[in-house]
Amino acid sequence: MMELKAQLTADGFADKTVLKCPKGTRDFDPKAMAIRDSILNKIVQCFKRHGAETIDTPVFELKDVLLGKYGEEGGKLIFDLADQGGEALSLRYDLTVPFARYLAMNKITNLKRYHIAKDFDIAGQYDLMIPEAECLRIVDEVLNSLKLGDFEIKVNHRLLLEGMFVASGIDLSLFKTVCSSIDKLDKLPWENVRYELINEKYIDSEAVDKLEQFVRMRELNRELSNMGLLEKFLSSSGIRDNNSAKTAINEMKLLLNYCELFGANKNITIEPSLARGLDYYTGVIYEAVIKAFSHSLNASQKVFGSEDDEIITVGSVAAGGRYDYLVGMFYPKKKNIPCVGVSFGVERLFSIKAMKAQVDGASIRTSETEVFVASAQKNLLKDRMRLCKLLWDNDVKAEMSYKSNPKMLNQLQYCEERKIPLVIIIGEFELENGIVKIRDVKTREETVCFEFIEFQELCDKFSLLSTKLNKSSLIS
Amino acid sequence: MMELKAQLTADGFADKTVLKCPKGTRDFDPKAMAIRDSILNKIVQCFKRHGAETIDTPVFELKDVLLGKYGEEGGKLIFDLADQGGEALSLRYDLTVPFARYLAMNKITNLKRYHIAKDFDIAGQYDLMIPEAECLRIVDEVLNSLKLGDFEIKVNHRLLLEGMFVASGIDLSLFKTVCSSIDKLDKLPWENVRYELINEKYIDSEAVDKLEQFVRMRELNRELSNMGLLEKFLSSSGIRDNNSAKTAINEMKLLLNYCELFGANKNITIEPSLARGLDYYTGVIYEAVIKAFSHSLNASQKVFGSEDDEIITVGSVAAGGRYDYLVGMFYPKKKNIPCVGVSFGVERLFSIKAMKAQVDGASIRTSETEVFVASAQKNLLKDRMRLCKLLWDNDVKAEMSYKSNPKMLNQLQYCEERKIPLVIIIGEFELENGIVKIRDVKTREETVCFEFIEFQELCDKFSLLSTKLNKSSLIS
Repeated sequence: MMELKAQLTADGFADKTVLKCPKGTRDFDPKAMAIRDSILNKIVQCFKRHGAETIDTPVFELKDVLLGKYGEEGGKLIFDLADQGGEALSLRYDLTVPFARYLAMNKITNLKRYHIAKDFDIAGQYDLMIPEAECLRIVDEVLNSLKLGDFEIKVNHRLLLEGMFVASGIDLSLFKTVCSSIDKLDKLPWENVRYELINEKYIDSEAVDKLEQFVRMRELNRELSNMGLLEKFLSSSGIRDNNSAKTAINEMKLLLNYCELFGANKNITIEPSLARGLDYYTGVIYEAVIKAFSHSLNASQKVFGSEDDEIITVGSVAAGGRYDYLVGMFYPKKKNIPCVGVSFGVERLFSIKAMKAQVDGASIRTSETEVFVASAQKNLLKDRMRLCKLLWDNDVKAEMSYKSNPKMLNQLQYCEERKIPLVIIIGEFELENGIVKIRDVKTREETVCFEFIEFQELCDKFSLLSTKLNKSSLIS
Repeated sequence: MMELKAQLTADGFADKTVLKCPKGTRDFDPKAMAIRDSILNKIVQCFKRHGAETIDTPVFELKDVLLGKYGEEGGKLIFDLADQGGEALSLRYDLTVPFARYLAMNKITNLKRYHIAKDFDIAGQYDLMIPEAECLRIVDEVLNSLKLGDFEIKVNHRLLLEGMFVASGIDLSLFKTVCSSIDKLDKLPWENVRYELINEKYIDSEAVDKLEQFVRMRELNRELSNMGLLEKFLSSSGIRDNNSAKTAINEMKLLLNYCELFGANKNITIEPSLARGLDYYTGVIYEAVIKAFSHSLNASQKVFGSEDDEIITVGSVAAGGRYDYLVGMFYPKKKNIPCVGVSFGVERLFSIKAMKAQVDGASIRTSETEVFVASAQKNLLKDRMRLCKLLWDNDVKAEMSYKSNPKMLNQLQYCEERKIPLVIIIGEFELENGIVKIRDVKTREETVCFEFIEFQELCDKFSLLSTKLNKSSLIS
């Protein structure tokens, strides 16, 4: 055995290298996991409420499956596996492209699915804007249930962006590069974006000034309702004759109507400057931000962070849109499976929830243990074990110390640290007289005390007690 | 837009390559996911019942963290990421080494945690065999709850293996290579293993024959109880004078006692030929098999598969043991954090469950939808939407068609295919008279029919109805 130990040590690690996670990754400790799980549970509950099935795909894909699906900028983010003489593989970058590959590979034309508790998509040929409205309802439901503060769901349409470009005299071959500048308007003032468009991307300054009136229409008309803004757009010169833009505006009007019926319109803002990066979107696009944590330039929204410029922002916490041609890219005959979906930024939601928990000083439970079985005297290990067995048999979440003769104080301390609500205390006196003490850890009262002629009876009483505990909400 | 479509198509994929998952990986479709989720839920419920916290670590680690932790054979299984000019990274191979790295990095001395719904470990200096007994209780609980048929938990001890080697005159420097032969005894008859040891590994034939009496002691004494077998071992020549072996036997006796108190002894078999591959085990080791799907040579257990030799076997479905020196490998001063754990073979459990579901012709629900909102006439989209909103608001899992004017037959067919239990049917007559029809999809009865003056009232009734459905068990 000593030999093994020596050998393990010789092969060891600690002497040479600093112990760390790979760059860009992190561990989640029990507190972080309690927060993350509560977020994932709420998201999945919402997906199930909307009747979604779930699928899973491998963490890596053939490199060719991912290539050419994200546009130039997305391509840079693909992480390859080392060549081990087999297929060229890459880590997946999102769940949308693997989903499209899955649909094409299995020749599926209709599916409502979610994927790893964060991606929800509806595939299929349906009537206009009904699936989009459900996606926005899902964003609204999830963000309400997470209680992260006021939020805003910005909505735009790829065809409206295209119409704005045409109306401004910007060639559509410049669509991607101009969009990537416009998309910065939530972080930068117009002047900076204008400078970039004219001086770095060499767009004609007259065209840029024409474009300004479109992309800043929301910013400069905050008082207008969403319908009002769309009407104003529709009457703008260059837009009223543009078929793409008119289609987009009519679709968004219909979407707003449906969202109202679904009760999901309250936090929606039509935002003509929203221009999401990924290539594959073809119709309505959307993005949600938690106001207090958004990049918004509106100073009144700066709630968190220090008083100077160091505002903690996390960007969008949910985003998605319609992508009608992505699945077709995997079909030999380019069959189209129209899709619309939404993806939640679980890491960002986690950061906000964790920050809020810290600010509020919230206490976080990291296990769900309902009862701890403690002994007041020595040599009661077997009795504690027998009691635990019966609690487990009755589906009561129970723990005991792994020491043969644990100290009472240590046992109670463990319960207080771990926020275990109840302790069963047994001692020789209790065993002889067929009773147990029940201690309420919070109040430290030991008033609940009853006969226990049979273990089973005790468990029944405990099952009743434990159902009173709120099992799902670990964050108080 | 056409331009985008053409461009997307030009970048496409389908023309050049066959659409597939990377070798060795697979997609999980909704039916497979329903089975897998039900397995993971049962495992996690069990872990929570035992008060475990949960952590998560990145899917890849610094290559140095993984190197030298699995022995020669494990090392071959490590999958490297492509060098992108940064750190040398590898995909994690199990969850135990990352757990050990996590403990050392965060200087944690005590923790009971689970990891991605399959790995449970107890770290800390505790009294002998108490944590081991809880691990075996967890294996017993999980395998009972999964209802996969009779199972066996084989238990052995590294020190007993070492004692058997010494007693047979085999040098401990040959420990790994001899163990890897012995471990094949669940698949191969002794004659083959003997041949390999003598002719391929050049072990002295007299030593091999001495070793036989130890490693085949369970096989040749099926009638002996576990305690009886350990007593027989203890009285064997060579063992009775070997301190390692005596320690192991006494520990296993204590473990059997504790397992009995925990009600987890019924399926345990002391099996001296169990010699798990991974280097890092130092004490008790165990492995569970579902009897009908195990490699066992016992012909009476061959239940599944065809009548000739093609038996479907899946190997062990849970395995683990004590590993006291692994965490120390990450500490500069080799501080020891004793650990014991168990890992469930979720993919194998899945295969068995899926096979059984197929054999039994079990019907599998892939979504949890409780109510489908259907309309009998045209132009009722808005009414269906309003009704869905209120159902969702009241946490009822509800769906409707995404078509403006869906056909009644198609809506009902969807419910039958998806096994949605109830349909609310609205039509003009119903809306005018303030009633709805409720259809039971299984019996096709439309008897439940009540006034609905207010939507809210309807939802309340539905909430009552829906709680009657068994939400958790999707596999009937």
